[in-house]
Amino acid sequence: MKVRPLADRVLVKRIEEEEVKKSGIIIPDTAKEKPQRGEVIAVGPGRLDEKGQRVPMEVKVGDKILFSKYAGNEVKIEGEEYLIMREDDILAVIEE
Amino acid sequence: MKVRPLADRVLVKRIEEEEVKKSGIIIPDTAKEKPQRGEVIAVGPGRLDEKGQRVPMEVKVGDKILFSKYAGNEVKIEGEEYLIMREDDILAVIEE
Amino acid sequence: MKVRPLADRVLVKRIEEEEVKKSGIIIPDTAKEKPQRGEVIAVGPGRLDEKGQRVPMEVKVGDKILFSKYAGNEVKIEGEEYLIMREDDILAVIEE
Amino acid sequence: MKVRPLADRVLVKRIEEEEVKKSGIIIPDTAKEKPQRGEVIAVGPGRLDEKGQRVPMEVKVGDKILFSKYAGNEVKIEGEEYLIMREDDILAVIEE
Amino acid sequence: MKVRPLADRVLVKRIEEEEVKKSGIIIPDTAKEKPQRGEVIAVGPGRLDEKGQRVPMEVKVGDKILFSKYAGNEVKIEGEEYLIMREDDILAVIEE
Amino acid sequence: MKVRPLADRVLVKRIEEEEVKKSGIIIPDTAKEKPQRGEVIAVGPGRLDEKGQRVPMEVKVGDKILFSKYAGNEVKIEGEEYLIMREDDILAVIEE
Amino acid sequence: MKVRPLADRVLVKRIEEEEVKKSGIIIPDTAKEKPQRGEVIAVGPGRLDEKGQRVPMEVKVGDKILFSKYAGNEVKIEGEEYLIMREDDILAVIEE
Repeated sequence: MKVRPLADRVLVKRIEEEEVKKSGIIIPDTAKEKPQRGEVIAVGPGRLDEKGQRVPMEVKVGDKILFSKYAGNEVKIEGEEYLIMREDDILAVIEE
Repeated sequence: MKVRPLADRVLVKRIEEEEVKKSGIIIPDTAKEKPQRGEVIAVGPGRLDEKGQRVPMEVKVGDKILFSKYAGNEVKIEGEEYLIMREDDILAVIEE
Repeated sequence: MKVRPLADRVLVKRIEEEEVKKSGIIIPDTAKEKPQRGEVIAVGPGRLDEKGQRVPMEVKVGDKILFSKYAGNEVKIEGEEYLIMREDDILAVIEE
Repeated sequence: MKVRPLADRVLVKRIEEEEVKKSGIIIPDTAKEKPQRGEVIAVGPGRLDEKGQRVPMEVKVGDKILFSKYAGNEVKIEGEEYLIMREDDILAVIEE
Repeated sequence: MKVRPLADRVLVKRIEEEEVKKSGIIIPDTAKEKPQRGEVIAVGPGRLDEKGQRVPMEVKVGDKILFSKYAGNEVKIEGEEYLIMREDDILAVIEE
Repeated sequence: MKVRPLADRVLVKRIEEEEVKKSGIIIPDTAKEKPQRGEVIAVGPGRLDEKGQRVPMEVKVGDKILFSKYAGNEVKIEGEEYLIMREDDILAVIEE
Repeated sequence: MKVRPLADRVLVKRIEEEEVKKSGIIIPDTAKEKPQRGEVIAVGPGRLDEKGQRVPMEVKVGDKILFSKYAGNEVKIEGEEYLIMREDDILAVIEE
């Protein structure tokens, strides 16, 4: 199954970080905030500007991104949770 | 009876997913969230841009789509429930 | 008495549907939701776009329409109830 | 005293309708809703569009109009109550 | 001291009306609503439109005006109370 | 230390007025409203319009201004309190 | 790890000021307000204007800035706290 986002939307998979406290104790999953980090899985064609032309997207498939806490719509695809957000909800690309 | 959506609106029929928990127990209908998946039944001609020209629609009849949780207006046509939403409330097209 | 809507407004008369439950029992009027279906009685000349030109209306007198639940202003004309709404509150035209 | 509305504003005098219940009993003034019908007393020159040109008004002095329930600002001029509203708050012109 | 309003702002002095009830009894000051009538004391140069040109003001110093109930900012200049409001908050000019 | 406001922002120092009641009694500082009067300390280069050109500022360093009650962000610079506000929050320039 | 902000966003590191009361007593960290001062760590390419062209950024890496109290999204990168904000949330650049 392939998901093709519309306009300037992006399909994102959260990256579950190994979040370890300074003491070395691993925080149980229920106590953790949902990560604001993800990987771009699919990218829309871009929104149309006022002249009817596509605005090219700044992110591409595979990019690791940071997004704002309440960004996007949660969707479940084949049992897996994803987010679909507008590119404007993406704060930054992480280059490692 | 035929429903012709206006402007950039889309007539959508929800797809009732067979939602089965990992344990294999089927969730009764009353406990399920309404699906955010549907099929496009009819498509408007597109909205007019600032120059008075139609912006072509990105979805077409028969497309399987994902939409945001509170998208659209519920309408009942010949006893059946449908949603009429703006194309902008559609998150993605699913290609299977 | 003739009512001439301004700009992109439309005068609508609700269509009282014969709403019969599956059991065949007719729902008394007080328990029914107001129908979201109506007939277009009068149509404005269209709104002016940014260049000062009329945007032609998509609906015409006699059209059967679906509109969103809280669309329009209720007005009473010669004892009869009508709705005056913007064309943008009309979801679709029904062709029978 | 003459009142000259600015931009796209209109000075309106409510028309007190003879509102008689079906039983023939006249509703006392305190129990009546304020009428949404009025007569245009004065008309502004029209708003300026983005190019700095006046958008001509669609209503003229003497027009009988329908307006939305919470339209306009109430003002008292020489002891009489009037409404000053934007033309966009006028729903329709009544032609008798 | 001279006050020069910026952009499309207007300096206004409320006109304290002699408000006399029909019975002839003068309403004490504390029971009166603040008047919505004023005199234009100073006028800004007008706002800049999208092309960077001044939109000429429709009111001038000395005009008697009607304004909406919650228009403007109250300011005290040399012990006197004034209002500074945008021209768009002025409803009409009164010509006596 | 020099503060250079961005875009159409202005750095303002409140002017503490000698506020004396009619009886001649000086109001203690805690009972006074914060003054809405200030002096312009620094001025941004102006905002960019839709064509990417700077809109020239209407105020300049040293101007005495009136501003609306909740205008701007309070900032502390070297122990002193200032306000940084957009030029649009400035109501008028005072010329003495 | 490198963070590349999108559009007109800026990655900022708060500057922890040595905040000493007049009495010379140092305020403990828990009682302090978070500083509204920071250093620019990374800068986006600028937003696209209506014609699809980049609007150049006014701040650059290394700039010391003042920002409004609730500006930006808090993000944690390699255990360190940062803010990602739009350039429009930056009030001023501090030159020392």
